[in-house]
Amino acid sequence: MKRILLLGAGRSASSLIQYLLQNAPAENWQVTIGDIQVDHLQDRLSKLDFAEAIVFDVHDQAQREAEVSKADLVISLLPAILHIEVARACLQQEKHLITASYVSPEFRELHEEAKKKNLTILMESGLDPGIDHMSAMAVIQRVQGMGGRITSFKSYTGGLVAPQSDNNPWNYKFSWNPRNVVLAGQGTARYIKNGAYKYIPYHQLFRRTDELYVEGYGHFDGYANRDSLSYREHYGLQDIPTMLRGTLRRIGYCAAWDVFVQLGLTDDSYTLEGVESMTNRSYLEAFLPPAVSADETLQQRLCRYLNLPAEGGVMEKLEWLGLFEAIPVRMEAATPAQVLEKTLVGKWKLEPGDKDMIVMQHLFTYELKGEEHELTSSLVVLGDDEVHTAMAKTVGLPVGILAKLLLQGKIDRRGVVIPIYPDLYEPVLEELKTYGVDFVEDEIKKTSL
Amino acid sequence: MKRILLLGAGRSASSLIQYLLQNAPAENWQVTIGDIQVDHLQDRLSKLDFAEAIVFDVHDQAQREAEVSKADLVISLLPAILHIEVARACLQQEKHLITASYVSPEFRELHEEAKKKNLTILMESGLDPGIDHMSAMAVIQRVQGMGGRITSFKSYTGGLVAPQSDNNPWNYKFSWNPRNVVLAGQGTARYIKNGAYKYIPYHQLFRRTDELYVEGYGHFDGYANRDSLSYREHYGLQDIPTMLRGTLRRIGYCAAWDVFVQLGLTDDSYTLEGVESMTNRSYLEAFLPPAVSADETLQQRLCRYLNLPAEGGVMEKLEWLGLFEAIPVRMEAATPAQVLEKTLVGKWKLEPGDKDMIVMQHLFTYELKGEEHELTSSLVVLGDDEVHTAMAKTVGLPVGILAKLLLQGKIDRRGVVIPIYPDLYEPVLEELKTYGVDFVEDEIKKTSL
Repeated sequence: MKRILLLGAGRSASSLIQYLLQNAPAENWQVTIGDIQVDHLQDRLSKLDFAEAIVFDVHDQAQREAEVSKADLVISLLPAILHIEVARACLQQEKHLITASYVSPEFRELHEEAKKKNLTILMESGLDPGIDHMSAMAVIQRVQGMGGRITSFKSYTGGLVAPQSDNNPWNYKFSWNPRNVVLAGQGTARYIKNGAYKYIPYHQLFRRTDELYVEGYGHFDGYANRDSLSYREHYGLQDIPTMLRGTLRRIGYCAAWDVFVQLGLTDDSYTLEGVESMTNRSYLEAFLPPAVSADETLQQRLCRYLNLPAEGGVMEKLEWLGLFEAIPVRMEAATPAQVLEKTLVGKWKLEPGDKDMIVMQHLFTYELKGEEHELTSSLVVLGDDEVHTAMAKTVGLPVGILAKLLLQGKIDRRGVVIPIYPDLYEPVLEELKTYGVDFVEDEIKKTSL
Repeated sequence: MKRILLLGAGRSASSLIQYLLQNAPAENWQVTIGDIQVDHLQDRLSKLDFAEAIVFDVHDQAQREAEVSKADLVISLLPAILHIEVARACLQQEKHLITASYVSPEFRELHEEAKKKNLTILMESGLDPGIDHMSAMAVIQRVQGMGGRITSFKSYTGGLVAPQSDNNPWNYKFSWNPRNVVLAGQGTARYIKNGAYKYIPYHQLFRRTDELYVEGYGHFDGYANRDSLSYREHYGLQDIPTMLRGTLRRIGYCAAWDVFVQLGLTDDSYTLEGVESMTNRSYLEAFLPPAVSADETLQQRLCRYLNLPAEGGVMEKLEWLGLFEAIPVRMEAATPAQVLEKTLVGKWKLEPGDKDMIVMQHLFTYELKGEEHELTSSLVVLGDDEVHTAMAKTVGLPVGILAKLLLQGKIDRRGVVIPIYPDLYEPVLEELKTYGVDFVEDEIKKTSL
C-alpha cells in the first residue's frame, strides 16, 4: 500500500481528488486529504475505506511533520507561498512532493538536498505551468528530432467561460483566483521578437494585444505575460529569435480592462480613504478629472478622459458591471484592486451548471530542409460544471497522473524537476487524452526559403 | 566655542558651507566638514583656522562616533538613507542634529529618546521639505489668527533653470539629483479636492497638469506629488476640503516627459538585456510596437503609437535629446531609467556660469467675514552660478540659520521637530530675506459668500 497526502482541497482540487479516488483501489493507495476546511468532502469520503479527510493547518508544525511522516507521497495544491514549509517537511521526512506551482528561488535551493536523499520534488505540473511545458516540449523535441530549427514560438493560455455558459458582455467568468486576475500583468512584459528584446509596460499591455484564432472557437485577444525570456532556457531554445508567452481573453475584454488600468483601479499598493462610505460611482469618480460642466455625466467624463466612444463594447461592459451606479461598496478598508475585485466577483461568478473553458495555443515557426513551416497546436477543454471545471481538470489531472507514475516507480529523476522530459510528459499527455485533454495540430508549409 | 560637524559636502552643500564659514568668526564656531571627497574644499579651508575638512566615511562606526562626540551640533546633508546612523550616534553622544530630509518612520521612533535627553533633531529644514513648511505656516497662522478659514491650499515647487541660462527646448536643466528627477512621481498621487479624495496613477500624472502663473516669470505646469494628504495634519488643516502639493515645470515639459512614462523608459525595476550593444535608437525601439511598413521611420512609429503630432514641441524635445540617433549608450548593465538618466545628464547639465532657478507658489483660498479670498504667495530664487545654485541656497540657508538659532539657545523644542512653529520659522524667513529668499504675496477678494 502507498499513502498519498494531498494538501489543499479547494476549488481547483476537485478533479485531482476524483482522479486519486478513482485510481486508489487499483493502485492500492490510501489517500488522506488535508485542508483547513474539509466539510464538503466528509459525505463522500466517509463511504470509502481507502480515503479520509482531515482538518489540516499548514502552519501547525507538529501536525505538518506528523502527517508528512505517514505519507509516501505528498501533493500540495495549497497557495504557492505555503509550499516551501511543506517541502522542508518532505525533505526532512524523506518523502516525494508534487505541486503545480513555479519553481521559486527558494525551491531551487532544495535541489541538491532532494537529489542526495533520492527524492523527487516535481513542480510546475498543473496547467500553466504544467501542460504548457509538456505540450510545447513534445512539439519542440519532435521538430528538432527531424532536424528542424524553431525560429518562433508563441504560446497563449486562457481560463475562460465556455460558449454555452457565456452570457455577459465581457465573455468572461472567474474559474480561478480572482485576485490574480485583477493583478495580472503588473510589472513589465519582456519578450524577444526577431532577435530584438521588447518591453511592454503594464499601462500599455492591454492595448498591445495580438489576435488569435482557434478552430471551432473563434477569435481571441492575447496579451504578453511578464516573463517570456526565462522559458528559452527551460525549453532548450536559447537562441530562438522570437519567443512570447501570453494570456488569452475573448475579443473586446482587453480593451475594456485597459480602462481599469488607465484609471488606476488595479493598483494594490495603497489603501483608499473613506472606503466605508464609498459607492461604485464615487470609487470611479475618485480616479477621474473634474467635470467640464455641471451637466456632464460620469459616463461622459470617463469617455472624454480616456478618449472612449460613448457607445460601443467598452462602455457596454462597464455599464453592465454597475460601475456608474451608486451601489455601496460595503468594505471597511481596501486597495483600489480589492474594491474592483469585489465588484467583479459579484458579476463574474460561475453559476450552478456553468461550464468554464481552458484554451491553450502554441504557434511555432520552424525551418526544415530549406522550407519554413508554421505549426499550431491548440487545446480546448470544457468544464463539466461549476465544480468540476476545466481549470480543475487541467490543473489536477497532470498532477494525479504524475503521482501515479511516481508511485509506480516509473519516474527516476530526482531533485527539483519540471516535466520537460519525454519520460515525464509522454505518458502524461497520453493519459490526458483519455480525459479529453487533447491538442489539435495544424501545420502549413509556408514558404521556400 | 561651539563645534559644528557638517556631514556631506556635495553639490547642495555649497551655500550652507558658505553660510557656516561666514558666521563662524562672529558666532565663535569651529566647523568640521566631513565627506568621502573633500579635495575641493582644502584650498579654501586651509586658510581658515576655524574650519577644517576631513575625509569621512559614514559607514565607519568608530569614525562616526569619534567625530560626533567632538561636536556640539551635527548637520547632515548626506543622502537621506544615511541619516539614521548619524542620528543614532547623535543620540548616543547626546548631540543635536539638523537635516533637510523627511522624518521617516525610523526617525519618528527617536522622538521620545531625543526629548528625554533634551536633544533637538530638526528635520525637513531645507527647501522642500523646509521653506515650503515655513512659508505655508506663516500664511496659515496669519489667516487663522484673523479668524479666517482656509478652504483650499495648493502648493507647488520646482527646481528649474533661470531664464537667462535657458537654452534648450525642455526649458530644464538638472540642479538636483538626476536620478530623483527621472523617478519622480512613481506610485500614485493622492490628494483631496472639494472634500473628495482623488488618485492619479503615475501613467496619467504628466497628462493631468494644472497651469500656474508667476509674476515676472510666466507660466508653469504643475503635476501632483505622491502624497498631499499627510500635510493636512502637519499644517493643522485636518478638515480642509482641497489640498494638493505638486511639482513645477515649464509649459511643455510634462507633455514630453509623458512620452517617457508611456513608453516605460522611467522604469527602474528591471535590467535591460543587451545594454552593452545598445544605442539611443535601439533603446527607444525596444519599447515600440512593430513598424507598419518598411519605410516607416522610428519617429513616425513613435507618433503613431502614442498619437503624437509629427511636428511640434514634443517631437522637437525628443529629437534634441538625440533619442532617434544611433549613439551608443555605453553602459554595461542598466535599467531603462538608468539609460534615460545617462542621456539626460549629458544634455541637461548646468554649464559654467549657468544659473538655476527655484520657483515655489502657494495658492490659498480662505473665507473671512463672509467673503472668499484668494491669496498667492510666490518665491523665485536664482542661482549665482552652477556651483552656488538656487537649489544649494534654498536647501542650505534655512539649515544654516536654524543651526545658528539652535547654538544661540533660541530653540528650546526638543525631540524630532519640523519647522512648522512660529518660533522656528519666523526668524528663518526673516533672515532668508536678506539673501533674496523672499515671498511675494498677491491677494484678491473673490466673492461675497
